[in-house]
Amino acid sequence: MPQTPDRAGRHGRALPVPGIQRLGDDHRAGPDRGRRHDVSTTPALVAVDWGTSSFRLWLMSLDGTVLAEHRSHEGMSEVAGRGFEAVLESHLGTLSAPGHLPVVICGMAGSRQGWVEAGYIDTPADVTTIGETATIVPGTARQIIIIPGLAVRSDAEPDVMRGEETQLLGAHFDMPGGERYCMPGTHSKWVSMDGSIVTGFETFMTGELFSVISGKTILKHSTGGDGNVDANDPAFLTGVRDGWTQPAKTTHHLFSIRAGQLLYDHQAGENRARLSGLLIGAEFAGAGIRGDEQIGLVASGALQRLYHAALAECGVQVRDIDADVAVRRGLLESWQRFSTTNGDVQSR
Amino acid sequence: MPQTPDRAGRHGRALPVPGIQRLGDDHRAGPDRGRRHDVSTTPALVAVDWGTSSFRLWLMSLDGTVLAEHRSHEGMSEVAGRGFEAVLESHLGTLSAPGHLPVVICGMAGSRQGWVEAGYIDTPADVTTIGETATIVPGTARQIIIIPGLAVRSDAEPDVMRGEETQLLGAHFDMPGGERYCMPGTHSKWVSMDGSIVTGFETFMTGELFSVISGKTILKHSTGGDGNVDANDPAFLTGVRDGWTQPAKTTHHLFSIRAGQLLYDHQAGENRARLSGLLIGAEFAGAGIRGDEQIGLVASGALQRLYHAALAECGVQVRDIDADVAVRRGLLESWQRFSTTNGDVQSR
Repeated sequence: MPQTPDRAGRHGRALPVPGIQRLGDDHRAGPDRGRRHDVSTTPALVAVDWGTSSFRLWLMSLDGTVLAEHRSHEGMSEVAGRGFEAVLESHLGTLSAPGHLPVVICGMAGSRQGWVEAGYIDTPADVTTIGETATIVPGTARQIIIIPGLAVRSDAEPDVMRGEETQLLGAHFDMPGGERYCMPGTHSKWVSMDGSIVTGFETFMTGELFSVISGKTILKHSTGGDGNVDANDPAFLTGVRDGWTQPAKTTHHLFSIRAGQLLYDHQAGENRARLSGLLIGAEFAGAGIRGDEQIGLVASGALQRLYHAALAECGVQVRDIDADVAVRRGLLESWQRFSTTNGDVQSR
Repeated sequence: MPQTPDRAGRHGRALPVPGIQRLGDDHRAGPDRGRRHDVSTTPALVAVDWGTSSFRLWLMSLDGTVLAEHRSHEGMSEVAGRGFEAVLESHLGTLSAPGHLPVVICGMAGSRQGWVEAGYIDTPADVTTIGETATIVPGTARQIIIIPGLAVRSDAEPDVMRGEETQLLGAHFDMPGGERYCMPGTHSKWVSMDGSIVTGFETFMTGELFSVISGKTILKHSTGGDGNVDANDPAFLTGVRDGWTQPAKTTHHLFSIRAGQLLYDHQAGENRARLSGLLIGAEFAGAGIRGDEQIGLVASGALQRLYHAALAECGVQVRDIDADVAVRRGLLESWQRFSTTNGDVQSR
């Protein structure tokens, strides 16, 4: 395989990669930190998480080392005009990624409105096999595959995920015995697993509801819009408890935020924190969390801090799994599974 | 008192009044229907329900006969530039309303962002006395008063209403022994009463949530936006049951609507009906309805049909109270109370 180790990550809009790291170790400090002598610098794969509003690309070696990273706002909804291949190749061009490098993609790029529809695998589904039925994007110069989503085919409560299944695969390797995973976001997912089998999942519209309620309803006057929330704010944690213990009152508690501003002059930061807490707490009630269980929290950044604090407030034992690390590992594992199944790995 | 009975209702944008009717009788057919010989045609009062997005004005006699009606979209948020008095007088001008006619107003015109802030009366509050502490608008040619709102001053669950207290007064006369009233709308109110005392109330953001969820979230692709819902649609009634019996699952059930469209091609009308049902059902759960109670439903039009069907689905005994009739009666009763308390009724 041709190698371009020294050029990776030095071009165009490549973000600084904080050290070349082994996959699986790079989200926690450890004795292997900084041991670069055993790290592969041969690019073998382009891993892409392509969502509705974001694009993240990693140039990776076969052992999971991240050689370069690109992030942009060229999500699915931005791309329509220019075409998916053009956007992808412009990123790869700035990385001087060799033309033979395969690309594995997860996320909304595989939806009906995306690049090529990648379908769904119905639950119960073995998450380790999602790479096997990846969809090959036709007519492209390089080999590009898109991971399928997962679906709960149920008349009463149908559900879908796309992108999270790949995170979940990575999370499964991080926490093999995990029975429940919480994947917060615009549409938070709660996943039940038995070994590597996804037995079911439920989506809660928590993040999107926070956004429209704080930005588009009468509460915008009380919350100052859709801003940051501090995980340690007592109003956040009280909101979590109220949402969790009285979920039926949620749409009433929301209006109470407005009334609290009118009657008691409650301030925007506190109101926003309470709104966030109420919606997250109601999500916990819907997911039926129990104080005695361990939950794998697949998240990063501000959401990780909020959900970790909220779960801890409810007595849950939280195992943090970095969402970025998980999705990269999931993409790599999916590619290896695809290659093995399709007999391609040897030819590369 | 000068009289202009023949001119009322014949000018400008006055809407056709469906027969001159006695207040209290005009929302139901009865033996008195059409008996006009005992009906006063002397205008004595201008009654106005002035909300955030709507303006409704009735020219009334002292016995409650509606002599003319104006409706417009000149709600509080439209009026800011032109001034409240100018908008009011332009309507009164087209009705040739005598300059001495007093005006009684309820609704958001009495809020801090409105014409003149009319304050709140704290619960428990005797709804028959709301007219006593009406706020007089200063510096106007004619006497104009604004009815105060009601407030629940509670650290844990503060709440406010403005406009509904006047409807409630009218409803109380229609159903004197009523213990619970449901007042659906953008912000639905559930009111508990003991005789004429409002012991407490809770607001649910049902209508506004329906609007932003169907219009501003991913569900807009599934619901075709914020359109009509048929009260007899089985998807509506199933949604009501699911929202009522599993309120904690509401934000999950919302996303299921999207998944149902993707997996089963569920159509917009059905999806919109289910969304509406889920939110109304969750409101019922929050309000803690019991199958064996009687509830006064203060509503009109499409909302009345939806809530009546939804409450009936949950086994509640519904007493329908027309919201328009109730607010007019509330405005008249408030005016009479104000006049009596302030010694003005004799001078008019």
